[in-house]
Amino acid sequence: MSNLYRPKLTQLPPDMLTLADYERRAPEFMPHPIFEYIDGGCGDDLTRNSNSSAFDRWQILPQSLQNFSRATTATRWFGQALPHPIALAPVAYQKLVHPQGELASAQAADALGALYCTSTLSSVTLEEIAPQVQQRWFQLYWQGNREQSLQLVRRAEASGYQAIMVTVDVPVNGLRQRPQRAGFQLPAGVRAVNLDTIATPGAQALDPGQSVILHGIMPAAPDWEDIRWLRQQTKLPLLLKGVLNPQDAARARDIGIDGLIVSNHGGRSLDGVASPMQMLAAIRQQCGEEMLLLVDSGVRRGTDVFKALALGANGVLIGRPLMYGLAIAGALGVAHTLKLLLEELEMTMALAGCPTLEEISAERLIKTF
Amino acid sequence: MSNLYRPKLTQLPPDMLTLADYERRAPEFMPHPIFEYIDGGCGDDLTRNSNSSAFDRWQILPQSLQNFSRATTATRWFGQALPHPIALAPVAYQKLVHPQGELASAQAADALGALYCTSTLSSVTLEEIAPQVQQRWFQLYWQGNREQSLQLVRRAEASGYQAIMVTVDVPVNGLRQRPQRAGFQLPAGVRAVNLDTIATPGAQALDPGQSVILHGIMPAAPDWEDIRWLRQQTKLPLLLKGVLNPQDAARARDIGIDGLIVSNHGGRSLDGVASPMQMLAAIRQQCGEEMLLLVDSGVRRGTDVFKALALGANGVLIGRPLMYGLAIAGALGVAHTLKLLLEELEMTMALAGCPTLEEISAERLIKTF
Amino acid sequence: MSNLYRPKLTQLPPDMLTLADYERRAPEFMPHPIFEYIDGGCGDDLTRNSNSSAFDRWQILPQSLQNFSRATTATRWFGQALPHPIALAPVAYQKLVHPQGELASAQAADALGALYCTSTLSSVTLEEIAPQVQQRWFQLYWQGNREQSLQLVRRAEASGYQAIMVTVDVPVNGLRQRPQRAGFQLPAGVRAVNLDTIATPGAQALDPGQSVILHGIMPAAPDWEDIRWLRQQTKLPLLLKGVLNPQDAARARDIGIDGLIVSNHGGRSLDGVASPMQMLAAIRQQCGEEMLLLVDSGVRRGTDVFKALALGANGVLIGRPLMYGLAIAGALGVAHTLKLLLEELEMTMALAGCPTLEEISAERLIKTF
Amino acid sequence: MSNLYRPKLTQLPPDMLTLADYERRAPEFMPHPIFEYIDGGCGDDLTRNSNSSAFDRWQILPQSLQNFSRATTATRWFGQALPHPIALAPVAYQKLVHPQGELASAQAADALGALYCTSTLSSVTLEEIAPQVQQRWFQLYWQGNREQSLQLVRRAEASGYQAIMVTVDVPVNGLRQRPQRAGFQLPAGVRAVNLDTIATPGAQALDPGQSVILHGIMPAAPDWEDIRWLRQQTKLPLLLKGVLNPQDAARARDIGIDGLIVSNHGGRSLDGVASPMQMLAAIRQQCGEEMLLLVDSGVRRGTDVFKALALGANGVLIGRPLMYGLAIAGALGVAHTLKLLLEELEMTMALAGCPTLEEISAERLIKTF
Repeated sequence: MSNLYRPKLTQLPPDMLTLADYERRAPEFMPHPIFEYIDGGCGDDLTRNSNSSAFDRWQILPQSLQNFSRATTATRWFGQALPHPIALAPVAYQKLVHPQGELASAQAADALGALYCTSTLSSVTLEEIAPQVQQRWFQLYWQGNREQSLQLVRRAEASGYQAIMVTVDVPVNGLRQRPQRAGFQLPAGVRAVNLDTIATPGAQALDPGQSVILHGIMPAAPDWEDIRWLRQQTKLPLLLKGVLNPQDAARARDIGIDGLIVSNHGGRSLDGVASPMQMLAAIRQQCGEEMLLLVDSGVRRGTDVFKALALGANGVLIGRPLMYGLAIAGALGVAHTLKLLLEELEMTMALAGCPTLEEISAERLIKTF
Repeated sequence: MSNLYRPKLTQLPPDMLTLADYERRAPEFMPHPIFEYIDGGCGDDLTRNSNSSAFDRWQILPQSLQNFSRATTATRWFGQALPHPIALAPVAYQKLVHPQGELASAQAADALGALYCTSTLSSVTLEEIAPQVQQRWFQLYWQGNREQSLQLVRRAEASGYQAIMVTVDVPVNGLRQRPQRAGFQLPAGVRAVNLDTIATPGAQALDPGQSVILHGIMPAAPDWEDIRWLRQQTKLPLLLKGVLNPQDAARARDIGIDGLIVSNHGGRSLDGVASPMQMLAAIRQQCGEEMLLLVDSGVRRGTDVFKALALGANGVLIGRPLMYGLAIAGALGVAHTLKLLLEELEMTMALAGCPTLEEISAERLIKTF
Repeated sequence: MSNLYRPKLTQLPPDMLTLADYERRAPEFMPHPIFEYIDGGCGDDLTRNSNSSAFDRWQILPQSLQNFSRATTATRWFGQALPHPIALAPVAYQKLVHPQGELASAQAADALGALYCTSTLSSVTLEEIAPQVQQRWFQLYWQGNREQSLQLVRRAEASGYQAIMVTVDVPVNGLRQRPQRAGFQLPAGVRAVNLDTIATPGAQALDPGQSVILHGIMPAAPDWEDIRWLRQQTKLPLLLKGVLNPQDAARARDIGIDGLIVSNHGGRSLDGVASPMQMLAAIRQQCGEEMLLLVDSGVRRGTDVFKALALGANGVLIGRPLMYGLAIAGALGVAHTLKLLLEELEMTMALAGCPTLEEISAERLIKTF
Repeated sequence: MSNLYRPKLTQLPPDMLTLADYERRAPEFMPHPIFEYIDGGCGDDLTRNSNSSAFDRWQILPQSLQNFSRATTATRWFGQALPHPIALAPVAYQKLVHPQGELASAQAADALGALYCTSTLSSVTLEEIAPQVQQRWFQLYWQGNREQSLQLVRRAEASGYQAIMVTVDVPVNGLRQRPQRAGFQLPAGVRAVNLDTIATPGAQALDPGQSVILHGIMPAAPDWEDIRWLRQQTKLPLLLKGVLNPQDAARARDIGIDGLIVSNHGGRSLDGVASPMQMLAAIRQQCGEEMLLLVDSGVRRGTDVFKALALGANGVLIGRPLMYGLAIAGALGVAHTLKLLLEELEMTMALAGCPTLEEISAERLIKTF
């Protein structure tokens, strides 16, 4: 582990002006295979790359001369007051880039009043993370069966997590060929500590001619019946993470799901899928005004946040930027990353003529021509 | 200041054939941070760059064999006769690139019969500029409150300016990251001299959790009520500069505004906004035939002027090209820049079969395929 | 011949993860003119290149949380059970890249349960190939007249081939300028051995002013009457290979053709023709649900297979990838190539929520934006 | 003049397979300023470049299994039988690249049965060119007034030219900035010899404030009245060259014009105008089936010829390729250029399933996607 971490910055140089600056400098702060693991999408990175360019399909049509005396970025999610709509995504294994891992990023979130999402695959236990940050949700990867999955939910409830998000877009790990080519593997000392007490299901025996993917792995993935069952088990708000399909959104609503993370897992699951920004408006239309919709995958600028809100999102999550901030300057870097994005959002609201989040509507966008 | 200015050209080399030639050579004639300040847009320069490419979305569909016995580029704006529809935009701080600053560019405008727009942020006083040029308008940046703003208008009236244009697209300065990275700051001796007598409003005290942008700066920006008030204060034609939204155009007309500059501030205010050429036709449709519509942001060729007129503009303004002409060859360079653009416009009218500006209509354009 | 073959790999290096890896390394394993012959399309390679990019015009819209207990890639073509829908295209002259030629690739197909298509221009006789592989079809190039063409069909029937596909998109060889520039010619010992017993038609004498192409070559090409006649001669399923036109598809169905290979010959026949993926949906719509539709030309990823099936294909064929696998590692390379593509298809089905081929429908696609 | 000409090839190397090969090698065979004059368009070469890419907006949708027993490329223009629809455009000053100039290219046209168009600005007299080639038309640049223009028409009639085409798209020379930057001027001994006996109109005196372009040059350009008058003066078929506008096409038909060359002068007149291929179908629709429509500007491949015919053209003209063939190998090079293009057209007809020009219809095209 001693070689894993490069010294972190304790002061931010003046040319760290944007999230792109963090991304540009991130390779200096971690071994190449880890950078490939974090930065890479899957397959040919088509979806990873189109996630960002999807935002450019809209331009902003400002409104002049609005009165800003009531201006604010504040919002409420499931009754919780938040100073702004930017949250940290549930990124796995944060100790890959910083010895404090999730503890540091949770502290940064807390400093900015941002929601923190703890991953099932966090490298610090969900119980240790909980006290670091007031606004916290727990991300659940289904653990092969209902009982084991529920164990994690119960632990999250016990630690005061305020909502549960179940990831539904990675029933099998995507073809992450960039880290594979770079020889990535988890370093000693970085592991999914939440699962230390969960029995790993034994590999299923396959008949000749059976497929590892279709017959070995997929049977352990959750289906709609499992989600319907889980909905009965907890009183916490329940979200699905990784929904792109408007029909899935409607189905989720119909079984009592409270919110969705419209996402393609940062382009890390299936290369060639649509981008969240492509589906967002249809999903909002399909699932109605009540459901909480968050977006991730490609958010890098305040104008991106603005566009997501204009198309129907209630907020956004950032994943890779969290890891780059953490790698470069620990909690300071994550907090600065959040602050840069928030200030860009404020700037966009000021210049587009939207004093509040509610006024950020589709009328403020026009298709790029 | 001695290092600020490179020697100017006193003769124009034969390869200065286009505005692009000026742009290409401009970096030789000024320190790098100043070039970045002038040339840069904001954010990722997306809007700055799309301003130019937006013109390429239309091609010209010529009309053959027209009779040119009545041919002319002449026009009238607010009753003033102008020999052509190309004006100089109100660029700030022109002493950044030439010791005479605005005086030289105003003289160049006068030599070509072009309208000159004096900026609130000019580095020579509006009173000194006035005698240099017959056709002159004054650009107003709102000065925190009505009284201070009106002071500037009264001075412009007293100096014989023939119209007032209020900039509405920069209530807060955009994220101009190129000059920021280059370490740009105003050199000693270059300042907004018009404001020497205007009291700078003290910084507003912010509560914890308040936003510098939303709560510190935006309250000093004008709103529609301020503009409605200003409209009552002067008999000069009043224009709004920086309108992109057709609904704003209609609202402006309804409160008695006489003209608009359809502009995104050369891509220097909010990166990701629409381009003037994208909104122009809708704005003309929304505000009717009476209103004077000028366009800036990306005009570099006579065909660009032609296309703007075809989509409903009465004329265009050039900003960066003015600064490059001034930096390279002073008044001579600005005059040559105007002349090149005017000759290209004449060439376009000849080859497209439009003997007068009135005949430049949307029928002469076709969407590029 | 001794210089023709580079030593083959007997173990696959860990960075051979995709069909693109095979393509990238293929030039090391064959003389340059042969690579140009295989890799090249024709003309300016416009169609060759757009074949691949055509797949990118659709993105996948996954369906979440499907139950995979019945998951399988199995299918049936003309009543034959196949474990998956990926077949080897009838590539000519496979001894160009491997001393065993078609024998090795047929064995690889058999190992993976894949259909093998023997070319009229195979460099091993169709009779020798037949015992190597259970699922086998014969590809017919019309041989100048009905009698000679029928000879080949009779031999295929006698050797237990289970279907006949007549190529209709190369009545004259395309302008394959890449191999022409590289000086490609068939090496000694590589020839179309199936035709050893077929009399080459003598060159037709041309009048002055007659065209070699239109009057010398084209009269020997088959027309619809010939196909109608051939349909009467054999009880085997009969397919046309190289159809792009929906009206041709309907006409084929009307005269009793059983299936089509929607193809532009990998962009090797006429540069500038449409891509199979562009025409596929219209062809399926025109010829109805009964006809077997296979697609080739540009299939390189499991997502490509998925998209072809979603638009109406029953399966796909791969051509160049077969040759690269064969050149690099013989039967092992071809088998690995098939396996990579199949696993990518399984991965795509898992992540897109389609447990069976029947569930891969156009609803799982969305036009890329 | 001794330095003007590089030795010509007397045998064509085997890698001269396409018109692009001629273009690629042309710079070796002429001084750089002459290459810039020929190869350049005008302005930023936007239109020059989009002329070629416009062809790529359509792909070919072949028809399989057609009977080719009646196949031919023959056609008739104004009653004249032509073996194929490819003609040589009226390129000026052909002695720029070959000492025999127009004599050599006319001979090449004759050898291939192609129509030859003599330019008003030919560097060999129209009388000397006439005996070299059977199929010949004369291109007229209006000479300031009706009388002088008619002189040229009368000479063409006397020399047996079979039609007159009046160029209407260059009333003033475009901004040809590539040759201007390269210092191009006509070498001694190369001049428009047809005009030796035509009095050059004296420069018109301009008032102050008048425009050289609009008031100095344009009054000498022809208008519709002049064309109507010219139509009365000759019994030869009369065509307009340089029409892009469907309304101009209809107007031409209404005053008895027999044909049009749909062209933007190879992108050499006004940068930013539409491409012929963009307007062709609308022009055919507007002017009806009777009018002869030829296309130039960007034709480089047999598939380009095919696409032009499919959209309504009766044939095509090539300009720059003529000059490159002439520069590289004299009459041999021009003849080879014509032959390459013709064979590509035959190949396209064979592979697209069109035995005759009449069968090349819009149904054989599909918009590129």
